[in-house]
Amino acid sequence: MNKIVAALVQQSCSEDRDENLSKSIGYIREAAAQGADLVVLQELHGGVYFCQSEDPDRFDAAEPIPGPTTELLSATAKESNVLIVASLFEKRAAGLYHNTALVLDKDGSVAGKYRKMHIPDDPSYYEKYYFTPGDLGFTPISTSIGKLGVMVCWDQWYPEAARLMALAGAELLIYPTAIGWDPADPVKEQQRQLDAWVTIQRAHAIANGIPLLAANRVGFEPAPGENGNGITFWGNSFIAGSQGEFLAEGGNTKEELILSEIDLCRTESVRRIWPFLRDRRIDAYGGLLQRYLD
Amino acid sequence: MNKIVAALVQQSCSEDRDENLSKSIGYIREAAAQGADLVVLQELHGGVYFCQSEDPDRFDAAEPIPGPTTELLSATAKESNVLIVASLFEKRAAGLYHNTALVLDKDGSVAGKYRKMHIPDDPSYYEKYYFTPGDLGFTPISTSIGKLGVMVCWDQWYPEAARLMALAGAELLIYPTAIGWDPADPVKEQQRQLDAWVTIQRAHAIANGIPLLAANRVGFEPAPGENGNGITFWGNSFIAGSQGEFLAEGGNTKEELILSEIDLCRTESVRRIWPFLRDRRIDAYGGLLQRYLD
Repeated sequence: MNKIVAALVQQSCSEDRDENLSKSIGYIREAAAQGADLVVLQELHGGVYFCQSEDPDRFDAAEPIPGPTTELLSATAKESNVLIVASLFEKRAAGLYHNTALVLDKDGSVAGKYRKMHIPDDPSYYEKYYFTPGDLGFTPISTSIGKLGVMVCWDQWYPEAARLMALAGAELLIYPTAIGWDPADPVKEQQRQLDAWVTIQRAHAIANGIPLLAANRVGFEPAPGENGNGITFWGNSFIAGSQGEFLAEGGNTKEELILSEIDLCRTESVRRIWPFLRDRRIDAYGGLLQRYLD
Repeated sequence: MNKIVAALVQQSCSEDRDENLSKSIGYIREAAAQGADLVVLQELHGGVYFCQSEDPDRFDAAEPIPGPTTELLSATAKESNVLIVASLFEKRAAGLYHNTALVLDKDGSVAGKYRKMHIPDDPSYYEKYYFTPGDLGFTPISTSIGKLGVMVCWDQWYPEAARLMALAGAELLIYPTAIGWDPADPVKEQQRQLDAWVTIQRAHAIANGIPLLAANRVGFEPAPGENGNGITFWGNSFIAGSQGEFLAEGGNTKEELILSEIDLCRTESVRRIWPFLRDRRIDAYGGLLQRYLD
Protein backbone atom coordinates (compact mmCIF):
# COMPACT_ATOMS: atom_id res chain seq x y z
CA MET A 1 0.00 0.00 0.00
CA ASN A 2 1.63 3.23 -1.15
CA LYS A 3 -0.89 5.82 -0.10
CA ILE A 4 -3.06 5.82 2.98
CA VAL A 5 -5.59 8.24 4.36
CA ALA A 6 -5.01 9.06 8.02
CA ALA A 7 -7.31 10.88 10.44
CA LEU A 8 -6.77 12.36 13.89
CA VAL A 9 -9.60 12.84 16.37
CA GLN A 10 -9.16 16.00 18.43
CA GLN A 11 -11.84 16.17 21.10
CA SER A 12 -12.71 17.44 24.55
CA CYS A 13 -13.60 15.01 27.33
CA SER A 14 -15.84 14.97 30.40
CA GLU A 15 -16.11 12.64 33.39
CA ASP A 16 -18.71 10.65 31.42
CA ARG A 17 -16.81 7.77 29.78
CA ASP A 18 -19.71 6.66 27.59
CA GLU A 19 -20.17 10.15 26.24
CA ASN A 20 -16.44 10.46 25.48
CA LEU A 21 -16.27 7.13 23.69
CA SER A 22 -19.49 7.79 21.77
CA LYS A 23 -17.96 11.02 20.54
CA SER A 24 -14.76 9.22 19.51
CA ILE A 25 -16.74 6.55 17.69
CA GLY A 26 -18.77 9.19 15.88
CA TYR A 27 -15.54 10.74 14.61
CA ILE A 28 -14.14 7.35 13.66
CA ARG A 29 -17.23 6.62 11.57
CA GLU A 30 -17.00 10.04 9.95
CA ALA A 31 -13.33 9.45 9.16
CA ALA A 32 -14.11 6.05 7.66
CA ALA A 33 -16.82 7.62 5.55
CA GLN A 34 -14.20 10.03 4.24
CA GLY A 35 -11.96 7.12 3.27
CA ALA A 36 -9.64 6.92 6.27
CA ASP A 37 -7.52 3.78 6.63
CA LEU A 38 -6.20 4.85 10.01
CA VAL A 39 -7.76 6.87 12.86
CA VAL A 40 -5.66 8.07 15.79
CA LEU A 41 -7.40 8.97 19.06
CA GLN A 42 -5.82 11.28 21.63
CA GLU A 43 -4.19 10.13 24.86
CA LEU A 44 -6.61 8.77 27.50
CA HIS A 45 -9.61 9.74 25.39
CA GLY A 46 -12.00 7.85 27.64
CA GLY A 47 -12.02 10.53 30.32
CA VAL A 48 -10.66 13.78 31.67
CA TYR A 49 -6.90 14.03 32.09
CA PHE A 50 -6.96 12.83 35.69
CA CYS A 51 -3.24 13.34 36.37
CA GLN A 52 -3.76 16.93 37.50
CA SER A 53 -3.81 15.51 41.04
CA GLU A 54 -2.73 12.32 42.82
CA ASP A 55 -5.97 10.58 43.73
CA PRO A 56 -6.06 6.86 44.62
CA ASP A 57 -9.69 6.58 43.48
CA ARG A 58 -8.65 7.33 39.91
CA PHE A 59 -7.16 3.85 39.61
CA ASP A 60 -10.79 2.60 39.46
CA ALA A 61 -10.87 3.77 35.84
CA ALA A 62 -8.03 1.46 34.77
CA GLU A 63 -8.97 -1.62 32.80
CA PRO A 64 -7.25 -4.71 31.41
CA ILE A 65 -6.40 -5.37 27.75
CA PRO A 66 -8.53 -6.95 26.40
CA GLY A 67 -11.33 -5.29 28.33
CA PRO A 68 -14.32 -3.00 27.77
CA THR A 69 -12.54 -0.35 25.67
CA THR A 70 -10.71 -2.94 23.59
CA GLU A 71 -14.00 -4.70 22.85
CA LEU A 72 -15.88 -1.54 22.01
CA LEU A 73 -13.22 -0.14 19.67
CA SER A 74 -12.48 -3.54 18.17
CA ALA A 75 -16.12 -3.71 17.09
CA THR A 76 -15.90 -0.16 15.74
CA ALA A 77 -12.74 -0.94 13.77
CA LYS A 78 -14.34 -3.99 12.19
CA GLU A 79 -17.65 -2.31 11.49
CA SER A 80 -15.96 0.70 9.86
CA ASN A 81 -13.09 -1.28 8.31
CA VAL A 82 -10.59 1.18 9.72
CA LEU A 83 -7.45 0.79 11.80
CA ILE A 84 -7.69 2.53 15.19
CA VAL A 85 -4.92 3.72 17.47
CA ALA A 86 -6.53 4.07 20.89
CA SER A 87 -5.18 5.01 24.31
CA LEU A 88 -6.18 3.80 27.74
CA PHE A 89 -5.27 3.46 31.39
CA GLU A 90 -4.20 -0.17 31.51
CA LYS A 91 -4.60 -2.28 34.62
CA ARG A 92 -1.98 -5.00 34.42
CA ALA A 93 -2.25 -6.18 38.01
CA ALA A 94 -3.31 -4.72 41.34
CA GLY A 95 -0.87 -1.84 41.91
CA LEU A 96 0.58 -2.07 38.39
CA TYR A 97 -0.80 0.30 35.77
CA HIS A 98 0.38 1.64 32.44
CA ASN A 99 -0.46 4.44 30.03
CA THR A 100 -1.00 2.25 27.01
CA ALA A 101 -1.70 2.72 23.32
CA LEU A 102 -3.66 0.00 21.61
CA VAL A 103 -3.75 -0.77 17.90
CA LEU A 104 -6.87 -2.41 16.47
CA ASP A 105 -6.58 -3.52 12.89
CA LYS A 106 -9.30 -3.16 10.27
CA ASP A 107 -10.66 -6.61 11.04
CA GLY A 108 -11.05 -5.74 14.72
CA SER A 109 -8.08 -7.80 15.88
CA VAL A 110 -5.60 -6.45 18.40
CA ALA A 111 -2.49 -5.75 16.31
CA GLY A 112 -0.44 -4.81 19.34
CA LYS A 113 0.04 -2.42 22.20
CA TYR A 114 2.66 0.07 23.38
CA ARG A 115 3.23 1.06 26.98
CA LYS A 116 4.40 4.66 27.42
CA MET A 117 8.12 4.49 28.08
CA HIS A 118 8.92 8.04 29.20
CA ILE A 119 6.71 9.12 32.10
CA PRO A 120 6.53 12.84 32.91
CA ASP A 121 5.95 14.38 36.29
CA ASP A 122 5.62 18.07 36.83
CA PRO A 123 2.97 20.37 38.28
CA SER A 124 -0.45 19.44 36.76
CA TYR A 125 1.00 16.29 35.15
CA TYR A 126 1.56 13.88 38.05
CA GLU A 127 1.98 10.83 35.85
CA LYS A 128 4.71 9.06 37.79
CA TYR A 129 2.12 8.36 40.47
CA TYR A 130 -0.20 6.57 38.08
CA PHE A 131 1.88 4.96 35.36
CA THR A 132 4.62 2.39 35.61
CA PRO A 133 7.20 3.04 32.85
CA GLY A 134 6.62 0.80 29.86
CA ASP A 135 8.54 -2.45 29.46
CA LEU A 136 7.75 -3.30 25.85
CA GLY A 137 10.49 -1.11 24.39
CA PHE A 138 10.26 0.93 21.20
CA THR A 139 8.78 -1.80 19.06
CA PRO A 140 6.75 -0.96 15.95
CA ILE A 141 3.38 -2.66 15.64
CA SER A 142 2.82 -4.61 12.42
CA THR A 143 -0.56 -3.94 10.81
CA SER A 144 -2.35 -4.30 7.50
CA ILE A 145 -1.21 -0.80 6.50
CA GLY A 146 2.42 -1.08 7.63
CA LYS A 147 4.60 -0.95 10.72
CA LEU A 148 3.40 1.72 13.11
CA GLY A 149 5.77 3.47 15.53
CA VAL A 150 3.17 4.21 18.18
CA MET A 151 4.29 6.13 21.25
CA VAL A 152 2.51 8.36 23.78
CA CYS A 153 2.80 12.06 24.62
CA TRP A 154 5.99 12.66 26.70
CA ASP A 155 7.78 10.19 24.41
CA GLN A 156 7.36 12.82 21.69
CA TRP A 157 10.09 14.97 23.28
CA TYR A 158 12.72 12.23 22.90
CA PRO A 159 14.57 11.93 19.60
CA GLU A 160 16.00 8.66 20.89
CA ALA A 161 12.54 7.09 20.93
CA ALA A 162 11.66 8.16 17.40
CA ARG A 163 15.02 6.97 16.13
CA LEU A 164 14.66 3.56 17.76
CA MET A 165 11.24 3.12 16.19
CA ALA A 166 12.65 4.09 12.78
CA LEU A 167 15.62 1.74 13.15
CA ALA A 168 13.16 -1.03 13.97
CA GLY A 169 11.34 -0.37 10.71
CA ALA A 170 8.49 1.96 11.68
CA GLU A 171 6.89 3.54 8.62
CA LEU A 172 4.89 6.10 10.58
CA LEU A 173 5.38 7.78 13.96
CA ILE A 174 2.14 8.19 15.92
CA TYR A 175 1.65 10.08 19.19
CA PRO A 176 -1.66 10.14 21.09
CA THR A 177 -1.22 13.19 23.33
CA ALA A 178 -2.72 15.29 26.12
CA ILE A 179 -0.81 18.53 26.46
CA GLY A 180 -1.88 22.07 27.10
CA TRP A 181 -1.24 25.46 28.57
CA ASP A 182 -1.26 26.68 32.12
CA PRO A 183 -3.84 29.48 31.72
CA ALA A 184 -1.74 31.60 34.10
CA ASP A 185 1.27 31.58 31.77
CA PRO A 186 1.87 34.63 29.57
CA VAL A 187 0.71 34.25 25.97
CA LYS A 188 4.29 34.44 24.69
CA GLU A 189 5.32 31.52 26.91
CA GLN A 190 2.27 29.58 25.75
CA GLN A 191 3.23 30.21 22.14
CA ARG A 192 6.84 29.09 22.75
CA GLN A 193 5.59 25.86 24.31
CA LEU A 194 3.24 25.08 21.45
CA ASP A 195 5.90 25.92 18.85
CA ALA A 196 8.40 23.70 20.64
CA TRP A 197 5.92 20.82 20.73
CA VAL A 198 5.21 21.07 17.02
CA THR A 199 8.85 21.65 16.09
CA ILE A 200 10.39 18.74 17.94
CA GLN A 201 7.88 16.31 16.45
CA ARG A 202 8.35 17.61 12.92
CA ALA A 203 12.06 17.08 13.58
CA HIS A 204 11.48 13.38 14.31
CA ALA A 205 9.85 13.07 10.89
CA ILE A 206 12.82 14.87 9.33
CA ALA A 207 15.56 12.97 11.18
CA ASN A 208 14.03 9.66 10.17
CA GLY A 209 12.39 10.46 6.85
CA ILE A 210 8.98 9.15 7.89
CA PRO A 211 5.56 10.77 8.37
CA LEU A 212 4.34 11.68 11.84
CA LEU A 213 0.87 11.97 13.36
CA ALA A 214 0.10 13.70 16.66
CA ALA A 215 -3.47 13.70 18.03
CA ASN A 216 -3.97 16.06 20.96
CA ARG A 217 -6.82 16.82 23.32
CA VAL A 218 -8.63 20.17 23.24
CA GLY A 219 -10.62 22.20 25.76
CA PHE A 220 -10.17 23.43 29.32
CA GLU A 221 -10.17 21.01 32.24
CA PRO A 222 -10.16 22.52 35.74
CA ALA A 223 -7.78 21.23 38.40
CA PRO A 224 -9.29 19.33 41.31
CA GLY A 225 -9.02 21.20 44.64
CA GLU A 226 -5.95 23.36 45.05
CA ASN A 227 -3.90 21.61 42.37
CA GLY A 228 -2.98 24.46 40.05
CA ASN A 229 -4.84 26.45 37.43
CA GLY A 230 -6.24 23.68 35.27
CA ILE A 231 -5.07 22.92 31.73
CA THR A 232 -6.17 24.45 28.45
CA PHE A 233 -5.37 21.58 26.10
CA TRP A 234 -4.04 23.20 22.98
CA GLY A 235 -5.25 20.83 20.26
CA ASN A 236 -3.15 21.61 17.19
CA SER A 237 -3.16 17.96 16.20
CA PHE A 238 -1.19 17.59 13.00
CA ILE A 239 0.11 15.29 10.30
CA ALA A 240 3.61 15.83 8.91
CA GLY A 241 5.19 14.22 5.85
CA SER A 242 8.58 12.57 5.46
CA GLN A 243 10.39 15.91 5.32
CA GLY A 244 8.48 17.26 8.31
CA GLU A 245 6.22 19.34 6.09
CA PHE A 246 2.66 19.96 7.27
CA LEU A 247 0.05 17.82 5.55
CA ALA A 248 -2.81 18.80 7.87
CA GLU A 249 -3.09 20.80 11.08
CA GLY A 250 -5.93 21.38 13.51
CA GLY A 251 -6.78 24.52 15.45
CA ASN A 252 -6.23 25.25 19.14
CA THR A 253 -9.76 25.62 20.42
CA LYS A 254 -12.28 23.25 18.91
CA GLU A 255 -13.08 19.60 18.41
CA GLU A 256 -12.28 18.44 14.91
CA LEU A 257 -11.30 15.65 12.63
CA ILE A 258 -7.95 16.23 10.90
CA LEU A 259 -7.48 14.18 7.78
CA SER A 260 -4.84 13.78 5.10
CA GLU A 261 -3.57 11.42 2.47
CA ILE A 262 -0.04 10.21 3.19
CA ASP A 263 2.28 8.89 0.50
CA LEU A 264 4.40 6.23 2.20
CA CYS A 265 6.65 5.98 -0.86
CA ARG A 266 8.13 9.39 -0.14
CA THR A 267 10.24 7.82 2.63
CA GLU A 268 12.31 6.04 0.00
CA SER A 269 12.91 9.18 -2.08
CA VAL A 270 13.50 11.46 0.90
CA ARG A 271 16.00 9.04 2.41
CA ARG A 272 17.84 8.97 -0.93
CA ILE A 273 18.37 12.74 -0.94
CA TRP A 274 19.09 12.86 2.80
CA PRO A 275 20.71 9.52 3.69
CA PHE A 276 21.01 10.20 7.42
CA LEU A 277 20.78 6.54 8.38
CA ARG A 278 23.88 5.77 6.30
CA ASP A 279 26.15 8.13 8.22
CA ARG A 280 25.20 7.63 11.87
CA ARG A 281 28.40 7.43 13.95
CA ILE A 282 27.38 4.37 15.93
CA ASP A 283 31.02 3.96 16.95
CA ALA A 284 30.77 7.27 18.85
CA TYR A 285 27.26 7.09 20.31
CA GLY A 286 28.06 5.07 23.43
CA GLY A 287 27.43 8.07 25.69
CA LEU A 288 23.74 7.99 24.74
CA LEU A 289 23.36 5.08 27.15
CA GLN A 290 24.59 7.22 30.04
CA ARG A 291 22.49 9.49 32.24
CA TYR A 292 25.04 12.31 31.94
CA LEU A 293 28.67 12.44 30.92
CA ASP A 294 30.46 13.68 34.01
CA MET B 1 28.54 34.98 32.80
CA ASN B 2 24.76 34.87 32.45
CA LYS B 3 24.20 36.81 29.27
CA ILE B 4 26.35 36.85 26.18
CA VAL B 5 26.05 38.58 22.84
CA ALA B 6 26.51 36.21 19.91
CA ALA B 7 26.99 37.04 16.25
CA LEU B 8 26.87 34.97 13.07
CA VAL B 9 28.71 35.96 9.90
CA GLN B 10 26.74 35.02 6.79
CA GLN B 11 28.83 35.73 3.71
CA SER B 12 29.49 34.74 0.13
CA CYS B 13 32.92 33.47 -0.91
CA SER B 14 35.13 33.55 -4.00
CA GLU B 15 38.28 31.66 -4.99
CA ASP B 16 40.30 34.51 -3.43
CA ARG B 17 41.17 33.36 0.10
CA ASP B 18 42.52 36.72 1.23
CA GLU B 19 39.38 38.49 0.10
CA ASN B 20 37.17 35.96 1.92
CA LEU B 21 39.10 36.21 5.16
CA SER B 22 39.27 40.01 4.97
CA LYS B 23 35.51 40.06 4.66
CA SER B 24 35.13 37.71 7.64
CA ILE B 25 37.49 39.84 9.73
CA GLY B 26 35.57 42.98 8.79
CA TYR B 27 32.39 41.37 10.10
CA ILE B 28 34.16 40.14 13.24
CA ARG B 29 35.32 43.68 14.00
CA GLU B 30 31.84 45.03 13.37
CA ALA B 31 30.37 42.37 15.70
CA ALA B 32 32.90 43.22 18.40
CA ALA B 33 32.05 46.90 18.03
CA GLN B 34 28.41 45.94 18.65
CA GLY B 35 29.38 44.14 21.85
CA ALA B 36 29.65 40.55 20.65
CA ASP B 37 31.39 38.04 22.93
CA LEU B 38 31.22 35.29 20.34
CA VAL B 39 31.36 35.33 16.53
CA VAL B 40 30.57 32.21 14.50
CA LEU B 41 31.87 31.95 10.93
CA GLN B 42 30.28 29.67 8.36
CA GLU B 43 31.71 26.32 7.24
CA LEU B 44 34.89 26.55 5.13
CA HIS B 45 34.65 30.36 4.99
CA GLY B 46 38.11 30.68 3.48
CA GLY B 47 36.98 29.69 0.01
CA VAL B 48 34.27 28.43 -2.29
CA TYR B 49 32.54 25.21 -1.30
CA PHE B 50 34.91 23.04 -3.31
CA CYS B 51 33.09 19.74 -2.68
CA GLN B 52 30.85 20.18 -5.73
CA SER B 53 33.38 18.00 -7.56
CA GLU B 54 36.15 15.55 -6.68
CA ASP B 55 39.35 17.35 -7.60
CA PRO B 56 42.74 16.24 -6.21
CA ASP B 57 44.16 19.74 -6.60
CA ARG B 58 41.73 21.04 -4.00
CA PHE B 59 43.77 19.36 -1.26
CA ASP B 60 46.33 22.14 -1.83
CA ALA B 61 44.04 24.45 0.14
CA ALA B 62 44.23 22.32 3.30
CA GLU B 63 46.39 23.62 6.13
CA PRO B 64 47.57 22.44 9.53
CA ILE B 65 46.32 23.67 12.90
CA PRO B 66 48.04 25.84 13.98
CA GLY B 67 48.70 27.34 10.56
CA PRO B 68 47.97 30.48 8.56
CA THR B 69 44.23 30.71 9.31
CA THR B 70 44.73 29.91 12.98
CA GLU B 71 47.33 32.67 13.25
CA LEU B 72 45.29 35.24 11.39
CA LEU B 73 42.08 34.65 13.35
CA SER B 74 43.92 34.27 16.62
CA ALA B 75 45.30 37.78 16.12
CA THR B 76 41.79 39.00 15.22
CA ALA B 77 40.26 37.42 18.33
CA LYS B 78 42.85 39.02 20.57
CA GLU B 79 42.69 42.40 18.89
CA SER B 80 38.89 42.50 19.04
CA ASN B 81 38.61 40.68 22.39
CA VAL B 82 36.04 38.33 20.94
CA LEU B 83 35.74 34.56 20.82
CA ILE B 84 35.73 33.17 17.26
CA VAL B 85 34.40 29.87 15.97
CA ALA B 86 36.16 29.33 12.65
CA SER B 87 36.09 26.50 10.12
CA LEU B 88 38.82 25.17 7.89
CA PHE B 89 40.08 22.35 5.74
CA GLU B 90 42.59 20.74 8.08
CA LYS B 91 45.66 18.93 6.81
CA ARG B 92 46.61 16.44 9.48
CA ALA B 93 49.07 14.44 7.37
CA ALA B 94 49.62 13.71 3.71
CA GLY B 95 46.43 11.95 2.61
CA LEU B 96 44.63 12.69 5.89
CA TYR B 97 42.33 15.69 5.96
CA HIS B 98 39.43 16.85 8.13
CA ASN B 99 36.62 19.39 8.02
CA THR B 100 37.47 21.11 11.27
CA ALA B 101 36.00 23.83 13.45
CA LEU B 102 38.44 25.86 15.49
CA VAL B 103 37.66 27.87 18.61
CA LEU B 104 39.85 30.88 19.39
CA ASP B 105 39.26 32.44 22.75
CA LYS B 106 39.17 36.17 23.45
CA ASP B 107 42.88 36.21 24.29
CA GLY B 108 43.73 34.64 20.95
CA SER B 109 44.53 31.21 22.37
CA VAL B 110 43.28 28.02 20.72
CA ALA B 111 40.52 26.82 23.06
CA GLY B 112 39.99 23.64 21.09
CA LYS B 113 38.94 22.09 17.82
CA TYR B 114 36.23 19.77 16.57
CA ARG B 115 36.53 17.49 13.56
CA LYS B 116 33.27 16.96 11.67
CA MET B 117 32.00 13.55 12.71
CA HIS B 118 29.19 12.93 10.19
CA ILE B 119 30.42 13.30 6.61
CA PRO B 120 27.80 13.68 3.87
CA ASP B 121 28.10 12.55 0.31
CA ASP B 122 25.48 13.20 -2.28
CA PRO B 123 25.37 14.94 -5.64
CA SER B 124 27.07 18.39 -5.31
CA TYR B 125 28.35 17.55 -1.81
CA TYR B 126 31.15 15.02 -2.37
CA GLU B 127 32.59 15.35 1.10
CA LYS B 128 33.53 11.73 1.69
CA TYR B 129 36.28 12.20 -0.88
CA TYR B 130 37.87 15.09 0.99
CA PHE B 131 37.19 14.64 4.69
CA THR B 132 38.14 11.79 6.99
CA PRO B 133 35.40 11.38 9.63
CA GLY B 134 36.33 13.09 12.89
CA ASP B 135 37.94 11.17 15.73
CA LEU B 136 37.61 13.66 18.56
CA GLY B 137 34.05 12.66 19.47
CA PHE B 138 31.28 15.00 20.57
CA THR B 139 33.33 16.88 23.10
CA PRO B 140 32.38 20.42 24.16
CA ILE B 141 35.16 23.01 24.06
CA SER B 142 35.73 24.91 27.30
CA THR B 143 36.10 28.65 26.82
CA SER B 144 35.94 31.88 28.79
CA ILE B 145 32.21 32.16 28.00
CA GLY B 146 31.24 28.55 28.71
CA LYS B 147 31.34 25.09 27.19
CA LEU B 148 30.62 25.20 23.47
CA GLY B 149 29.08 22.26 21.62
CA VAL B 150 30.66 23.02 18.26
CA MET B 151 29.79 20.75 15.35
CA VAL B 152 29.74 21.20 11.58
CA CYS B 153 26.93 21.17 8.99
CA TRP B 154 25.82 17.54 8.34
CA ASP B 155 26.13 16.92 12.09
CA GLN B 156 23.16 19.25 12.48
CA TRP B 157 20.81 16.57 11.14
CA TYR B 158 21.70 14.13 13.94
CA PRO B 159 19.84 14.43 17.26
CA GLU B 160 22.35 11.95 18.68
CA ALA B 161 25.18 14.44 18.20
CA ALA B 162 23.36 17.32 19.86
CA ARG B 163 22.33 15.08 22.75
CA LEU B 164 25.87 13.85 23.32
CA MET B 165 27.16 17.41 23.41
CA ALA B 166 24.46 18.36 25.93
CA LEU B 167 25.16 15.32 28.09
CA ALA B 168 28.82 16.33 28.12
CA GLY B 169 27.84 19.75 29.44
CA ALA B 170 27.62 21.93 26.33
CA GLU B 171 25.89 25.23 27.10
CA LEU B 172 25.46 26.23 23.46
CA LEU B 173 25.17 24.26 20.22
CA ILE B 174 27.04 25.86 17.31
CA TYR B 175 26.97 24.77 13.65
CA PRO B 176 29.13 26.40 10.96
CA THR B 177 27.34 25.36 7.78
CA ALA B 178 27.36 25.39 3.99
CA ILE B 179 24.01 24.25 2.66
CA GLY B 180 21.88 25.42 -0.22
CA TRP B 181 19.43 24.71 -2.95
CA ASP B 182 19.80 22.98 -6.24
CA PRO B 183 18.53 25.79 -8.51
CA ALA B 184 16.80 23.15 -10.64
CA ASP B 185 14.57 22.01 -7.76
CA PRO B 186 10.99 23.32 -7.63
CA VAL B 187 10.44 26.20 -5.20
CA LYS B 188 8.20 24.04 -3.01
CA GLU B 189 10.93 21.44 -2.60
CA GLN B 190 13.44 24.19 -1.83
CA GLN B 191 11.11 25.54 0.84
CA ARG B 192 10.63 22.09 2.40
CA GLN B 193 14.39 21.62 2.57
CA LEU B 194 14.99 24.99 4.22
CA ASP B 195 12.13 24.43 6.68
CA ALA B 196 13.49 21.01 7.56
CA TRP B 197 16.96 22.44 8.15
CA VAL B 198 15.67 25.13 10.48
CA THR B 199 13.21 22.81 12.22
CA ILE B 200 15.57 19.99 13.09
CA GLN B 201 18.10 22.39 14.57
CA ARG B 202 15.49 24.23 16.63
CA ALA B 203 14.50 20.77 17.85
CA HIS B 204 18.03 20.14 19.16
CA ALA B 205 17.72 23.33 21.23
CA ILE B 206 14.34 22.12 22.51
CA ALA B 207 15.36 18.52 23.26
CA ASN B 208 18.33 19.71 25.26
CA GLY B 209 17.14 23.05 26.63
CA ILE B 210 20.13 24.98 25.30
CA PRO B 211 20.53 27.77 22.73
CA LEU B 212 21.68 26.98 19.21
CA LEU B 213 23.57 29.00 16.59
CA ALA B 214 23.77 28.11 12.91
CA ALA B 215 25.89 30.22 10.54
CA ASN B 216 25.34 29.42 6.88
CA ARG B 217 26.90 30.55 3.62
CA VAL B 218 24.97 32.67 1.12
CA GLY B 219 25.18 33.25 -2.63
CA PHE B 220 25.34 31.12 -5.77
CA GLU B 221 28.42 29.04 -6.56
CA PRO B 222 28.53 27.36 -9.98
CA ALA B 223 29.52 23.72 -10.31
CA PRO B 224 32.86 22.98 -11.98
CA GLY B 225 32.51 21.27 -15.36
CA GLU B 226 29.55 18.96 -15.70
CA ASN B 227 29.01 18.45 -11.98
CA GLY B 228 25.41 19.53 -11.51
CA ASN B 229 23.63 22.86 -11.40
CA GLY B 230 25.66 24.69 -8.78
CA ILE B 231 24.39 25.56 -5.32
CA THR B 232 22.40 28.57 -4.18
CA PHE B 233 23.46 28.71 -0.55
CA TRP B 234 20.35 29.68 1.37
CA GLY B 235 21.78 31.72 4.23
CA ASN B 236 19.03 31.88 6.85
CA SER B 237 21.61 31.78 9.63
CA PHE B 238 19.81 31.90 12.94
CA ILE B 239 20.07 31.94 16.71
CA ALA B 240 17.52 29.99 18.77
CA GLY B 241 16.96 30.12 22.52
CA SER B 242 16.61 27.29 25.03
CA GLN B 243 13.04 26.53 23.95
CA GLY B 244 13.95 26.64 20.27
CA GLU B 245 12.43 30.11 19.88
CA PHE B 246 13.99 32.43 17.30
CA LEU B 247 16.23 35.11 18.77
CA ALA B 248 17.60 36.29 15.42
CA GLU B 249 17.33 35.10 11.84
CA GLY B 250 19.07 36.14 8.63
CA GLY B 251 17.63 36.34 5.14
CA ASN B 252 18.22 33.96 2.21
CA THR B 253 19.98 36.17 -0.28
CA LYS B 254 22.45 38.62 1.17
CA GLU B 255 25.56 38.87 3.30
CA GLU B 256 24.81 39.98 6.82
CA LEU B 257 25.78 39.93 10.44
CA ILE B 258 23.14 38.29 12.66
CA LEU B 259 23.41 39.29 16.29
CA SER B 260 21.50 38.57 19.49
CA GLU B 261 21.85 38.59 23.24
CA ILE B 262 21.52 35.09 24.72
CA ASP B 263 20.53 34.48 28.33
CA LEU B 264 22.39 31.32 29.36
CA CYS B 265 20.41 31.16 32.63
CA ARG B 266 17.26 30.19 30.76
CA THR B 267 18.65 26.67 30.40
CA GLU B 268 18.16 26.12 34.11
CA SER B 269 14.55 27.38 34.13
CA VAL B 270 13.57 25.66 30.88
CA ARG B 271 14.98 22.35 32.08
CA ARG B 272 12.94 22.69 35.28
CA ILE B 273 9.65 22.97 33.39
CA TRP B 274 10.67 20.33 30.83
CA PRO B 275 12.98 17.91 32.65
CA PHE B 276 13.72 15.72 29.65
CA LEU B 277 17.14 14.68 30.89
CA ARG B 278 15.60 13.18 34.04
CA ASP B 279 13.41 10.72 32.17
CA ARG B 280 15.63 9.36 29.40
CA ARG B 281 15.15 5.57 29.20
CA ILE B 282 18.84 4.74 29.06
CA ASP B 283 17.95 1.14 29.92
CA ALA B 284 16.10 0.90 26.59
CA TYR B 285 18.37 2.89 24.27
CA GLY B 286 20.85 0.12 23.41
CA GLY B 287 19.55 -0.07 19.83
CA LEU B 288 20.90 3.43 19.16
CA LEU B 289 24.33 1.85 18.86
CA GLN B 290 23.16 -0.37 16.01
CA ARG B 291 23.10 0.51 12.31
CA TYR B 292 19.57 -0.88 11.94
CA LEU B 293 17.44 -3.21 14.00
CA ASP B 294 16.83 -6.16 11.74
